[in-house]
Amino acid sequence: MKAAVVTVGDEILIGQIVDTNSAYIAKAFDKIGIGVYEMLSISDERQHILQTLAFLQNRVDVVVITGGLGPTKDDVTKTTLCEYFDDHLVRNEAVEAHVVELIEKALKRTASQINKDQALVPSKAKVLHNAFGTAPGMWLKRGDTIFISLPGVPYEMKGLIDNEVVPRLVAEFERPYIIHKTIMTYGQGESIVAERIAEWENNLPEHIKLAYLPSPGKVRLRLSTRGTDEAFLRNGIEVEAAKLNDIIGDIIVGFDEDETMEVVLGRLLAQKGKTLAAAESCTGGKIAQMITSVPGSSAYFMGSAVTYATDSKVNILKVEQQLIDVFSVVSAKVAESMAVNAKKLYKSDYAVSTTGNAGPAKGDAAAEVGTVYIGIATPNGVTSHKFELGQPREKVVARAAEKALELIYQEILKN
Amino acid sequence: MKAAVVTVGDEILIGQIVDTNSAYIAKAFDKIGIGVYEMLSISDERQHILQTLAFLQNRVDVVVITGGLGPTKDDVTKTTLCEYFDDHLVRNEAVEAHVVELIEKALKRTASQINKDQALVPSKAKVLHNAFGTAPGMWLKRGDTIFISLPGVPYEMKGLIDNEVVPRLVAEFERPYIIHKTIMTYGQGESIVAERIAEWENNLPEHIKLAYLPSPGKVRLRLSTRGTDEAFLRNGIEVEAAKLNDIIGDIIVGFDEDETMEVVLGRLLAQKGKTLAAAESCTGGKIAQMITSVPGSSAYFMGSAVTYATDSKVNILKVEQQLIDVFSVVSAKVAESMAVNAKKLYKSDYAVSTTGNAGPAKGDAAAEVGTVYIGIATPNGVTSHKFELGQPREKVVARAAEKALELIYQEILKN
Repeated sequence: MKAAVVTVGDEILIGQIVDTNSAYIAKAFDKIGIGVYEMLSISDERQHILQTLAFLQNRVDVVVITGGLGPTKDDVTKTTLCEYFDDHLVRNEAVEAHVVELIEKALKRTASQINKDQALVPSKAKVLHNAFGTAPGMWLKRGDTIFISLPGVPYEMKGLIDNEVVPRLVAEFERPYIIHKTIMTYGQGESIVAERIAEWENNLPEHIKLAYLPSPGKVRLRLSTRGTDEAFLRNGIEVEAAKLNDIIGDIIVGFDEDETMEVVLGRLLAQKGKTLAAAESCTGGKIAQMITSVPGSSAYFMGSAVTYATDSKVNILKVEQQLIDVFSVVSAKVAESMAVNAKKLYKSDYAVSTTGNAGPAKGDAAAEVGTVYIGIATPNGVTSHKFELGQPREKVVARAAEKALELIYQEILKN
Repeated sequence: MKAAVVTVGDEILIGQIVDTNSAYIAKAFDKIGIGVYEMLSISDERQHILQTLAFLQNRVDVVVITGGLGPTKDDVTKTTLCEYFDDHLVRNEAVEAHVVELIEKALKRTASQINKDQALVPSKAKVLHNAFGTAPGMWLKRGDTIFISLPGVPYEMKGLIDNEVVPRLVAEFERPYIIHKTIMTYGQGESIVAERIAEWENNLPEHIKLAYLPSPGKVRLRLSTRGTDEAFLRNGIEVEAAKLNDIIGDIIVGFDEDETMEVVLGRLLAQKGKTLAAAESCTGGKIAQMITSVPGSSAYFMGSAVTYATDSKVNILKVEQQLIDVFSVVSAKVAESMAVNAKKLYKSDYAVSTTGNAGPAKGDAAAEVGTVYIGIATPNGVTSHKFELGQPREKVVARAAEKALELIYQEILKN
């Protein structure tokens, strides 16, 4: 089964908002064996919508259209659907009652005519109940294709996908299995990883696809397959993942895409009953933010001294001014002092520190833009590492934070 | 001039990642008068790419394709471009030299053959320099349409759009002006706002379009127009905005939205020559990270004491243990003490603090999930504010950080 996702709205085409609906729908469909063939974002114009519906009809089995269902004049999806399906609007009493109740309850006023007109739907449409808003979902069919129209407000769309669309598709259609497994690797670039696994990749079975998803400091390898025999598919994926583990086990840190370095690190700390602190200059709180994005991180993360200004390194972290004067604020010595002092101040077992120049302009130090020192304090002592992380600013910060987590993870593994 | 944006990659179609590239490109194009007609996300398959290029040729003036330019086997954009343009790959020496240098500098190793092959480009392509990565951009033409192929890595794509694509398009083409003005309203729903401005909306000049962008608690009204006479267009928009202000001035709170709070706050601090520090518990470094995402922030931001564990609030921030015992760690008193002590420790003019429960589980305090206290220390004293920010965790952190920046901004404005 193939689907297409269409988002309607000029706000997307001028870049005013990022479309997150399509990814949500794709993920939900992937889980039930429906592959998304294409995603399109188009304007709120009648002609553009008509063209797109015609283009997709018979090309895919299901089209989900989000947006353009509001009560205002710029919302034209509903009338355009009537045109495409050679239909007219009729009042749905159940929807009108829901609209009146929703407005009274949430806004403590009576529904206006504009509100009530949300209950007008094409006569040929099956209505899908929108528990969280006034615009109902609609389910129509033309040719071999089902067209599903949903409101664009993310939490309304999500409710409709989860509670109405997915259950109906599951009940109505036989679908294949789509199975993915993502292998997370750290520390080597995409091209090196590709070289190491080239022979294995060349011998992958026809029905298993490999994708590389590189990002600063890490590469995710995604194995995908689809078919009707679930056990066969799952087994095939597991066999290949095991082979991969034999080849590049040294850089594999996990087998799930939800397993980010902060999750893996957090689990290791929790297992060992150890605590961590940080002292951040150029990463500006990014390390703390990554670690605390994991629920339950308060059990092992004490905190981070973000000392952005040079003076703060002296005031808060008690780095000796002389060290800064002699070695510069971007130096191995200062990184090490920051880590050691953070460990002491936070009374943690481990601490990690960053000091560097994220750019675009040079800061208080002579170091090149992109130069970052990472300090690692452990119960056994302190070390530091120097990196040249290039540009621009956001890349330097992201890579420095990733590197810091990776280094401290490896250090804790050893102990 | 009309453009289309195509993102290539199965990771988008299975919902593994959200496409943010398209919105960035659309925004950049909108500023130079190029309207994006359509956005498409398609698979890494040769046939699908060929079909899409053919569909867009002569339908739009410019097609930007991102993704599929990596060095691994799943990246097929370059060979597919060769097929579409009836072309072959040639080695570009400048690109190869850049690749070799980049790999040596960043990774401290010599470039492999896979790396060097990034320098293979279609012979008909103009090469666009990718300062931040190894995959060059490419500029090709067929029929009346320009095809621009860019890497999918966001910071590489951004560099190419800003430094190569936009300047070339500006130099080569006459473009109309596209002008938007967004009016932010608070406190009334979309349908009420629509009723209040119905008469004005009916009388809008033909060339001015109105869009409603509702979100919880607020409605943004966007006026858009395009044409060749900039003064005429700007004046038209201003006249209509002024009329709108006469009708719904009571709920209008502002006229722009591009300026994030961290940019506005940073400019205010720089103007006043004042400095800021933070003390973060539940926001876990998010405030620091937002502020330091602005280049030049080291001039006014001293740092943040991320004190995630309760003990750290005592050890680092010198919050009195008794205060925590009596009032609980999630309390107005503790938020205020954190702010005051951060201001003292960092020797800053202002400080902002957060303490709360981001969930999903309750922490060291009795407070409900979603409860956050924000403390504000100024040269004149200290205040605090309590918020109930609901769930889930990521929303609580994001809203608490936004609120904190907003409160400190208002406080600095007053002084």
